[in-house]
Amino acid sequence: MSDGAVTTTQAFERIWDELAPVGHDGGSGGYRRYALTREDDTLREWFAGAAAARGLELVEDRAGNQWAWWGDPDAEPGIVLGSHLDSVPDGGAYDGPLGVVSALLAIDALMMDGFVPRRPLGVACFADEEGARFGVACAGSRILAGSLDADRALGLRDQDGTTMADALRAAGRESVAADPEALRRVAAFVELHVEQGRGLVDLGHPVALGSAIVPHGRWRLDFRGEANHAGTTRLEDRHDPMLGYAAAVLEARRLAAHHGIVATCGKVRVEPNGVNAIPSHVTGWLDARGQDADAVRALVADMTAFATERDAEVAEESWTDATAFEADLTTRLGETLGDVPVLATGAGHDAGILAQAGVPTAMLFVRNPTGVSHSPEEYAELDDCLAGVDALTAVARELAG
Amino acid sequence: MSDGAVTTTQAFERIWDELAPVGHDGGSGGYRRYALTREDDTLREWFAGAAAARGLELVEDRAGNQWAWWGDPDAEPGIVLGSHLDSVPDGGAYDGPLGVVSALLAIDALMMDGFVPRRPLGVACFADEEGARFGVACAGSRILAGSLDADRALGLRDQDGTTMADALRAAGRESVAADPEALRRVAAFVELHVEQGRGLVDLGHPVALGSAIVPHGRWRLDFRGEANHAGTTRLEDRHDPMLGYAAAVLEARRLAAHHGIVATCGKVRVEPNGVNAIPSHVTGWLDARGQDADAVRALVADMTAFATERDAEVAEESWTDATAFEADLTTRLGETLGDVPVLATGAGHDAGILAQAGVPTAMLFVRNPTGVSHSPEEYAELDDCLAGVDALTAVARELAG
Repeated sequence: MSDGAVTTTQAFERIWDELAPVGHDGGSGGYRRYALTREDDTLREWFAGAAAARGLELVEDRAGNQWAWWGDPDAEPGIVLGSHLDSVPDGGAYDGPLGVVSALLAIDALMMDGFVPRRPLGVACFADEEGARFGVACAGSRILAGSLDADRALGLRDQDGTTMADALRAAGRESVAADPEALRRVAAFVELHVEQGRGLVDLGHPVALGSAIVPHGRWRLDFRGEANHAGTTRLEDRHDPMLGYAAAVLEARRLAAHHGIVATCGKVRVEPNGVNAIPSHVTGWLDARGQDADAVRALVADMTAFATERDAEVAEESWTDATAFEADLTTRLGETLGDVPVLATGAGHDAGILAQAGVPTAMLFVRNPTGVSHSPEEYAELDDCLAGVDALTAVARELAG
Repeated sequence: MSDGAVTTTQAFERIWDELAPVGHDGGSGGYRRYALTREDDTLREWFAGAAAARGLELVEDRAGNQWAWWGDPDAEPGIVLGSHLDSVPDGGAYDGPLGVVSALLAIDALMMDGFVPRRPLGVACFADEEGARFGVACAGSRILAGSLDADRALGLRDQDGTTMADALRAAGRESVAADPEALRRVAAFVELHVEQGRGLVDLGHPVALGSAIVPHGRWRLDFRGEANHAGTTRLEDRHDPMLGYAAAVLEARRLAAHHGIVATCGKVRVEPNGVNAIPSHVTGWLDARGQDADAVRALVADMTAFATERDAEVAEESWTDATAFEADLTTRLGETLGDVPVLATGAGHDAGILAQAGVPTAMLFVRNPTGVSHSPEEYAELDDCLAGVDALTAVARELAG
């Protein structure tokens, strides 16, 4: 190992240790880093500090995303690396932070090397990518791009009924809005992310290029019933919405296999959620994704028919069509990186939102030995993380050099 | 209507109005009156005030239940009327409070009538009957009677992880313990309760005597899986505990019909409960009851086998065998009240706990026109409530006269 490699290892471990305690839950071992919370504040301050330490200029766009610029993107649009720092409930350490940390370390490597960018180079830290609190994934990049209406976003409520507007006020922050000017500063965006499957394990490579994000969406299923006493209400007198929900969970799995896609019921809310009360209302959420948008649509149509027969309502909360990353950019990065696999992903990313908004966009994936993500067990080997930093450094040198 | 009846109507409406706002949820229209909360404090103070206004002596037993005595039960065991004031989540106004209010109004009627009890007459207000917060129903009477070990009770946790011991401390209250001395003060206990079914509607009577509480219990089903990303994890790589839970909900209903009993899955807890995460852990609760204890036991055995095949664990949280109220006492009250129906109930009550502890116990049920209970829709007609007060007054006159 060269001296440089040792330094990168130490730098990676140091920066990783800085982030490790923020929002860590001792019980689950996972992370709870949600939008507009104290943890979010801490992470935003940490990113601002990381920008300042490198002499980068920190800019916050009108949608609440943070940008750290090396050079002036108002003079000429720049090359942007980055990802997000928030998490799903009890998420892993890598989903998001690995991209932000790798981008900062790529900047460090270039600076240490005396690299002089010919065009501005930036690191983006997107707000509320997971949508864990207000229910809409990639909220920061969607609001920025205008694909999530800011007024609709401000009215979204968390599980305590707090709106995003109120949460912003409580955090001492201003409102949010689309920001086409901020978007125009981005000539190209490259997001590095831990892989959320085992594609790279099977291929024996530490890093891959992304080809596309498969079509995906979220639907809410509301089953309404009649609350009543669990001990004194005859079976034939019951209107128990838990039965409809349970049938829908099993049906979603059956239909996913039938249509060759994936479908998940990972979240449920029950009113009143008492052991000895038949529920009055069960709300379930369906996440469905697949290579073929028609197959996903067909599953949702089948589920809607299934739910409607059980007096339930189905509402679409989000839908993202197939998103191909830019072919020319991806080809160019493939040439830069040499022999790397190209993979599609079933996960949504801010890169997908920017690509849909017309920004030339590419993704890099770092090998995940278990494939596990959105879990405390999520993991990547240090050597693979460093290979990711090296790849991102090469990409930045190619695009901004 | 006589002047006395008008007064009872006014008294009922006044006392009902006093309780109406406590713990009322504007959203659901139901009540949230849980153990060791601010609402609980308010209700305890209200009961203490009601005792003081009638010149009754307030005693708190070591288990935290309140007793308002007319006469000295240490000189001679007394006749006790009463029920509880706490609620299930979004419960109705009648379940519990109707028994306490009717007992106080019966005392009023006797006092107004110049009645002189030959033995002490008391009103009991039991703590934490619904078990909404700490998961064990009839916690106050069970701790009193020693059928719930006080140390086990103190270690019970609410959904935020707070133990009963901590909640007691936070409420400025002492610990809890069994209290055989308090139990010895009770010569007989009569609990009036709103009916939680439509038995009286079908029989055309406003008031019934209870014959028995059917066997009932609560079981916790823990389905463990592996958290993972909803978009990137292939169906065949998933260990999704929501599927086992959903199958169990449907199986419980099928088995209930098969065994001729009732079974309910009204409460569920999902970790991490994120739209885009396969859950790591789903905990469901099963409530099962029926006339025939063997049928309930058979359902639980079938459910345990079903869950075990799906890598789930089943734990019994509570079990109450069939509880017959005292035959002699019930016969005597039947003679006092004349032509009243006698009904068994599927609901557990403090009266059942006291009966199991050897206290001669009886119950009165007041007609519920819809049969709905544990719901904001729970209701009883004013005239039927007044008939309940009259019946309870007659019972107290008979037993304490």
